[in-house]
Amino acid sequence: MSNYVVGVDIGGTKIYTALATIDGQVQAETKVPTIPSDKYEGVLNRIVETVEEVQRQAGVSGGLLRVGVGAPGPLDVASGIVHEAPNLGWVEVPLKDSLEKRLGAPVYLDNDANLAAWGEYIYGAGRGTSDLVYITVSTGIGAGLVLGGRLYRGASYGAGEIGHLTVLPDGPECRCGNRGCLEAIASGTAVTRKAWRMIAGGGGKGILESAGGSIDAVTAATVGEAGLRGDPEAQALFVEVGYWLGIGVAGILNLLNPSVVVLGGGMVGSASLFWGALEEEVGRRAFKSARKSVSLTTAKLVERSGVLGAVAYALKPE
Amino acid sequence: MSNYVVGVDIGGTKIYTALATIDGQVQAETKVPTIPSDKYEGVLNRIVETVEEVQRQAGVSGGLLRVGVGAPGPLDVASGIVHEAPNLGWVEVPLKDSLEKRLGAPVYLDNDANLAAWGEYIYGAGRGTSDLVYITVSTGIGAGLVLGGRLYRGASYGAGEIGHLTVLPDGPECRCGNRGCLEAIASGTAVTRKAWRMIAGGGGKGILESAGGSIDAVTAATVGEAGLRGDPEAQALFVEVGYWLGIGVAGILNLLNPSVVVLGGGMVGSASLFWGALEEEVGRRAFKSARKSVSLTTAKLVERSGVLGAVAYALKPE
Repeated sequence: MSNYVVGVDIGGTKIYTALATIDGQVQAETKVPTIPSDKYEGVLNRIVETVEEVQRQAGVSGGLLRVGVGAPGPLDVASGIVHEAPNLGWVEVPLKDSLEKRLGAPVYLDNDANLAAWGEYIYGAGRGTSDLVYITVSTGIGAGLVLGGRLYRGASYGAGEIGHLTVLPDGPECRCGNRGCLEAIASGTAVTRKAWRMIAGGGGKGILESAGGSIDAVTAATVGEAGLRGDPEAQALFVEVGYWLGIGVAGILNLLNPSVVVLGGGMVGSASLFWGALEEEVGRRAFKSARKSVSLTTAKLVERSGVLGAVAYALKPE
Repeated sequence: MSNYVVGVDIGGTKIYTALATIDGQVQAETKVPTIPSDKYEGVLNRIVETVEEVQRQAGVSGGLLRVGVGAPGPLDVASGIVHEAPNLGWVEVPLKDSLEKRLGAPVYLDNDANLAAWGEYIYGAGRGTSDLVYITVSTGIGAGLVLGGRLYRGASYGAGEIGHLTVLPDGPECRCGNRGCLEAIASGTAVTRKAWRMIAGGGGKGILESAGGSIDAVTAATVGEAGLRGDPEAQALFVEVGYWLGIGVAGILNLLNPSVVVLGGGMVGSASLFWGALEEEVGRRAFKSARKSVSLTTAKLVERSGVLGAVAYALKPE
């Protein structure tokens, strides 16, 4: 029997893969970009290549004990089917079966936010605690929940959609079709949209500059760079993000009273621009006892939360 | 060793007590009003009387195996201290110790909403499922969570404060000190306040009538009676309640994807006045898959959810 497991974190922009021994020591890691035009077979090929790469790096040949895989989109943990992953162009793909055939090892599939939560719980900010909420703030906003020391998935694997808490009933339209979802107001996509509107209205000079003068190149990341360079309009956009994320986090504290809340995802690169506003709003809206008993932090594993969660899941699927 | 357990549900208006055999057969129940002037010793006396009463009814003498107790307010399950129960005038009372001395049996204390959730999970709407959220809509709004088949209490026993989710950031002030909490907009207290304002503004004739013509006698219950008799102003107030509760319930579905959501508490007596609006808003804001996999219902045990949960907790404390 093989003594190695592999974890794979499939994202909209990258595939991150790691190999570990069965006692959890990571031996090799690799990261490749996702190619948007790749579609399903192409992404499968890329995944297999990364697995071969980490085996090569670690000098390991032969079969793997188990492979843990985190994938975006609503999916079915039991059947291993991904229902929909718009960033990858996937609809109803049998990811578990496909990868088991290619890799010749049992594959355990879960939602990427769930495995990022699990990674932080086992190896990162949640070590030694029992209730952790991992919130990813990126193009969208989602969450993974570890409650009572176990990954909590809900009745149809749909738990953690914190981005679709209503925070402003008549607020902006969300891609989910509703209005006033947290994601429609505080995600990277929302920041980009607000920056565009600002520029279209004749403002946002510093924001435009950070994007090399092209409005098409303006993203949440370039707005963040402008803010970090001191641009007040960019900073104001992130203060707003902090206010709304604070409302969402306060809701989590009041409802779940977790011991740890971890913020991850691309927007956390600009955390210094919104953390103060976030803390202020949490302090205002969360119960003092819930605020006192939580550690509120950015992801300790940074971009490795997901892949290390996939490794931990491969080591002990449940 | 005794073969009997007792469950006690201490509310702001009544004490409900039941005795059961160790295989969970309820043998006797009793209910007495809480007397507001009673304070701590008085309530303890009333509780002891109800326990003696159910023992008498069941023809059982001698010690009890265990007593499960649900009490309002933030409390510490481990130490058995109730931090604050405004309706009872309690501050930092050692309820578990006091009752153990009086009753001569081990007492297991928990939050009343938690035990109501547990009651519905073991004996009511949640039988055979694993993830249940019980929402009590009364003078305040709170919840108990059963997740993965276990009562989920959070890091400092503070989980379930769904009444303090922000649903309208600049909304009305809440007794917790914040603005726009669900409780400040959709609780019985909020309905009463809106009815008062309506009457003060020269409207609400039918509402006033249901309260015998005295504005001081107007409560959420009398507004409900007016609505059930066909008064359109009362009905409009409850449609509003349904809208806001729907936003809260949709948030629960998106975040926790439970198999059952149970609504209990006094306001549920007027459920027919707000259920349609609630369902409509849930349908609008919750993910379809989460909506499809949940059973959304009023409490099957009606006012006995809490006392039967206390019995179940006494049978198997955890």
